[in-house]
Amino acid sequence: MAKRIITISREFGSGGRFIGEEVAKKLGVTYYDKDIIGQIAEQSGLSPEYIKENAELSPKKGLFAYAFAGRDITGKSIEDIVYEAQRKVILELAGKEPCVIVGRNADYILKDRDDVLNVFIHGDMPEKVQRIMGLYNVEEKEAVKMMADTDKRRMTNYNFYTEQRWGMAGNYTLALNSSVLGYDMCQKIIMDCTKI
Amino acid sequence: MAKRIITISREFGSGGRFIGEEVAKKLGVTYYDKDIIGQIAEQSGLSPEYIKENAELSPKKGLFAYAFAGRDITGKSIEDIVYEAQRKVILELAGKEPCVIVGRNADYILKDRDDVLNVFIHGDMPEKVQRIMGLYNVEEKEAVKMMADTDKRRMTNYNFYTEQRWGMAGNYTLALNSSVLGYDMCQKIIMDCTKI
Repeated sequence: MAKRIITISREFGSGGRFIGEEVAKKLGVTYYDKDIIGQIAEQSGLSPEYIKENAELSPKKGLFAYAFAGRDITGKSIEDIVYEAQRKVILELAGKEPCVIVGRNADYILKDRDDVLNVFIHGDMPEKVQRIMGLYNVEEKEAVKMMADTDKRRMTNYNFYTEQRWGMAGNYTLALNSSVLGYDMCQKIIMDCTKI
Repeated sequence: MAKRIITISREFGSGGRFIGEEVAKKLGVTYYDKDIIGQIAEQSGLSPEYIKENAELSPKKGLFAYAFAGRDITGKSIEDIVYEAQRKVILELAGKEPCVIVGRNADYILKDRDDVLNVFIHGDMPEKVQRIMGLYNVEEKEAVKMMADTDKRRMTNYNFYTEQRWGMAGNYTLALNSSVLGYDMCQKIIMDCTKI
């Protein structure tokens, strides 16, 4: 079945976001990444700044922080409210139009649709570190720290809300090493696979 | 760098072996799967029957069985001897000629070469079960059991000898869901990626 929706999960520094943007441009479909934040804010009643920091990343302290997060009288933590708003927005977007959605556990949220191509982009350490150094204008040591920290928080968030393990090949239709394959080849493969 | 060697790891029933054979045929390179057993037997001094049962699969009892396996005076178990022979054979084959190698932790064994394309083929339950029922002429219940058993033993063997986790996208250049993409598309992607 033709794939109208492409979700892209990615390691920090792997170029996954860039690849997603390029694919959306070439296919002429909407690209959702940061743009989604305003909609989640509206749904949840929380500020865009709060969503930006929390909707995809776990609290810095990891998995246990979820368990001990403050809860309202229904037993929901703020993290749960943000996640529920995010889930609603992603389901709505996917129902509305063909698009590329980067991050935010969209692969799992859309798992009951069969017109979705789930992609995971990862890469090798040296290339990822170089890319982060260039993008954020930081030294190597800082780049390595940013990478480890961000991926750990993404993984914790994913594992908590999806009951799957972040980075397992089985979660994704396609998983690609962008350091070995190059960004152009990753785009080509994704575009070839939307035609199935 | 052009990829001379293709390693294929696969879930049982995913069609990974078939895809590997087809790619080898189309590229005109040697395909190694069962053919490798004779060479491992020669290297290790053990019987081909023993190798067939043990070189890729863990003992039925899982990871602890390795720890308690009988050992010779150098501390090596028969499993270690088989594995060492397998490693030698795979390194030699990869040094000699372009080829496709299915299974046997070849992705890890060849990890220091940069002319290797590591592929993981997985699939969805219903398609895998159907395929196994057809190939082995068994009922659904038996197919599910064969699949769970074989994948568990492959995983245990892989995790024990590689210090990586079987099925993690990061281990492979490409990971493909053959149920969604279809066998032809999997072959096409692999062949496109050998040209990098």
